[in-house]
Amino acid sequence: MKHDEAVEKWSVFEIALPGKTAGNPFADYQINATFENADERKNVAGFYDGDGVYKVRFMPSFEGDYSFAVSGNFADETYSGKFTATPPSPGNHGPVAVSNRYHFAYADGTPFYPIGTTCYVWELQSDALIAQTLDTLRRSPFNKLRFCVFPKSYCYNAREPRSYPYEGTPVDGNLINEDNVWDFGPDAKGNCWDFMCFNPAHFRHIEKCILALQNLGIEADVILFHPYDRWGFSTMTTEQNEFYLRYVAARFSAYRNVWWSFANEYDFIKSKTTEAWERFAQVIVSCDPYHHLRSIHNGVQFYDHTRPWITHCSIQRSPEGTADWRKAYQKPVVIDEMQYEGNIQYGWGNISPQELTKRFWEALCRGGYGGHGETYIGENLWWAHGGTLTGESPVRIAFMRKILEGAPSGGLKPKAMAWDELCVVPEDETKEKETGYHLFYYGINRPSFRQYHIDDENNYGVEVIDTWNMVVTEIGVFRGKFRIDLPGREYMAVRIRKA
Amino acid sequence: MKHDEAVEKWSVFEIALPGKTAGNPFADYQINATFENADERKNVAGFYDGDGVYKVRFMPSFEGDYSFAVSGNFADETYSGKFTATPPSPGNHGPVAVSNRYHFAYADGTPFYPIGTTCYVWELQSDALIAQTLDTLRRSPFNKLRFCVFPKSYCYNAREPRSYPYEGTPVDGNLINEDNVWDFGPDAKGNCWDFMCFNPAHFRHIEKCILALQNLGIEADVILFHPYDRWGFSTMTTEQNEFYLRYVAARFSAYRNVWWSFANEYDFIKSKTTEAWERFAQVIVSCDPYHHLRSIHNGVQFYDHTRPWITHCSIQRSPEGTADWRKAYQKPVVIDEMQYEGNIQYGWGNISPQELTKRFWEALCRGGYGGHGETYIGENLWWAHGGTLTGESPVRIAFMRKILEGAPSGGLKPKAMAWDELCVVPEDETKEKETGYHLFYYGINRPSFRQYHIDDENNYGVEVIDTWNMVVTEIGVFRGKFRIDLPGREYMAVRIRKA
Repeated sequence: MKHDEAVEKWSVFEIALPGKTAGNPFADYQINATFENADERKNVAGFYDGDGVYKVRFMPSFEGDYSFAVSGNFADETYSGKFTATPPSPGNHGPVAVSNRYHFAYADGTPFYPIGTTCYVWELQSDALIAQTLDTLRRSPFNKLRFCVFPKSYCYNAREPRSYPYEGTPVDGNLINEDNVWDFGPDAKGNCWDFMCFNPAHFRHIEKCILALQNLGIEADVILFHPYDRWGFSTMTTEQNEFYLRYVAARFSAYRNVWWSFANEYDFIKSKTTEAWERFAQVIVSCDPYHHLRSIHNGVQFYDHTRPWITHCSIQRSPEGTADWRKAYQKPVVIDEMQYEGNIQYGWGNISPQELTKRFWEALCRGGYGGHGETYIGENLWWAHGGTLTGESPVRIAFMRKILEGAPSGGLKPKAMAWDELCVVPEDETKEKETGYHLFYYGINRPSFRQYHIDDENNYGVEVIDTWNMVVTEIGVFRGKFRIDLPGREYMAVRIRKA
Repeated sequence: MKHDEAVEKWSVFEIALPGKTAGNPFADYQINATFENADERKNVAGFYDGDGVYKVRFMPSFEGDYSFAVSGNFADETYSGKFTATPPSPGNHGPVAVSNRYHFAYADGTPFYPIGTTCYVWELQSDALIAQTLDTLRRSPFNKLRFCVFPKSYCYNAREPRSYPYEGTPVDGNLINEDNVWDFGPDAKGNCWDFMCFNPAHFRHIEKCILALQNLGIEADVILFHPYDRWGFSTMTTEQNEFYLRYVAARFSAYRNVWWSFANEYDFIKSKTTEAWERFAQVIVSCDPYHHLRSIHNGVQFYDHTRPWITHCSIQRSPEGTADWRKAYQKPVVIDEMQYEGNIQYGWGNISPQELTKRFWEALCRGGYGGHGETYIGENLWWAHGGTLTGESPVRIAFMRKILEGAPSGGLKPKAMAWDELCVVPEDETKEKETGYHLFYYGINRPSFRQYHIDDENNYGVEVIDTWNMVVTEIGVFRGKFRIDLPGREYMAVRIRKA
């Protein structure tokens, strides 16, 4: 039996054991383990990792001594052992969960404000490109990355992936024409996969990438299904899909920075019914012992985000509806796709950096969280391959992130003020009272001045924030009803706090 | 009896007669006349114009010899006479009416494409300022002007008007504070008006302004009621309002360029019920013998534009809904207020010239017509006082007008193409087939290229239009499915026509 004697709390404790190889080890044998300490007891499913090796992974949620006992028909022997969960190192705050109804926090209570981006298949590119992506991310404001387990076939996504999730033979089916116009559906004819036989190397590599993100403090928003496929991975049977989900859950759940995104654009995957999605959700709910965040991202039509297994709304749409979605679903609103900064031919991928930055501020100032993507025509498009960022929005999003992190913790909620401004205040009423924090945003409007009136009792410090030029200007301290001059430009915000 | 021997068709033939002055001539006496020629016979109400003079005005809709007979208790004598309606001079195309269901044309068949602007009380300013406004209009793209009969009291509208519509004494009630924040309702206390006794000079002056607009080829979209009042004109009784409407109809109807706008922001006039608006509509319907265009402009909530007396939708909103409104109301859609280019504190008056120009194109490319206004802080705000235009949108709107006038006549209708572009084609199917005219618009999207496919049979000439920089670039002639390179900038349009 191979395992560490000690791991940090919220890190991966892994048991690796030799086992049977006759038949199909993925399907024919199980490995499970029960982990126990003074504070928790968890039974965890393991998985076959190829080459005769079975593994069980566990993420301890408490410090102290754990014992474990391995069971299952993967071997004739029984195994048990002990390890110690040590205190988390400084960068380790645990997994992220919903906090304060509309927001997020790490397990140690540190607030997590999602500032996401999307690189759908960055992890299936070359080592060099992956390294470049990680380097770019390290210098970026992004703390959440959406990407797919399955490879992607779509406009600007013509390459074969570095590996496939199954044993078998793909057809080299690069059907993308030279103009990158995607006008055909999935065509999986000629591919030959054994959907009962995973390719462990594919998953091992993804785990390496998840860990690399973890080291950068980035949450891995793992997309389990998506429609953009030429290999037949989007049209497997429900049983094959469930088999896949159990395998993924057994492999990935112990990584603290994993989020489950059931789909990119679930409604564009015509082969899966609501009943199927609900079954898939139950597989993950029952197989992920840590209850990582779960969402399902729409193309056009929202999934029913009131479903109890959905922890937060992952939305594709412009952010005008954020406050309504908060009200309707009583969950955090993360607008993972608000159209991307870029210049490709499609409307979802060619808005300006001004517009994308505006949408980030609008999402924030309506009580939600925006998401980034970049689609400039070139060898690599960030939104698909990763690589480098060339757009002008990320530095502005970084600026916004600082403003957000400077707000009272626990997140911000919309406050109805004038019809022609957005305003957020601390989600917690007591924090609003304590701090008097108000963040106003004017978007495309260009007022030369505005009047404010928080209350008559307190003095308020006022700052004007140019969200595009990234300048915060202290204006002064005011009381009662007061007027603030503004530059008559777009993209201005005003921050007011008790003096 | 004073009258001309000949007037042009669609001009004003006016009879002026002395009459009784005892009591209240506005209320106590009537004057009517019947006009007749080979093609029409109309009975028309006249009005008291002060100083013992009664007038009847008539707009002949046909050429040739007319006879008329005057009746009414305004005098003890009877009067009759003749005149000749001569052919219209070159600039005289007659009144505008709805044409082709969603569009407009003059009575002589010339298409009228409304490119409106708003100067709510331009005509109640000084002679010098009025002259400046007319000079600005002459050099502008605008062919329709919205303005009020009643003076206006609102932010940036503090001045007393040059005259009042009634005999009486106003309170000098300039309640606007120095920041031009309008946070009070109508306060008519202290005003003393005789609502049964008009001030003819007020109306005579407005008629002069209507004629001045007519000379510039500009339609006068006369706003009959509005909420922004400190004199009590917005809170008259229903009877007083009807008395006013009959007087206005008798005075203004014969001017061919008059349109009736029942209200600016009818829903903000809390004193008037739907029943009242419907009565007012019937007064105008029965008292305007020429059936000038009739609309009622919303603040937030639309009036029921299916009402048969409403000839076209006059809308305040951004233009996204244009195609839906066409479908719902089966009438022309004129978005008279889409927010204004400017820099005042309010969101309705501080969008950029780029944004306003974009909204014009968007209205056009959804099958409707936008409207302009300008609200830059200064001595005179165009939207209220007229004066000069300093904004950057009018020249772009002029450019758009040329593009529109270059389209096949009869107007444009939306055509569903890709989800991420707007497209209009000729409203008439036969014209679409003949010309193959397609106008695409991309707004804030920045495609580097697009693919098009009109049909396989014809050759199409393609032009790329930079709507902001006002440049049309011929690209070439194409057939079947083809790709057009675009500059990856905002505000681009593409015009495709049979070669």
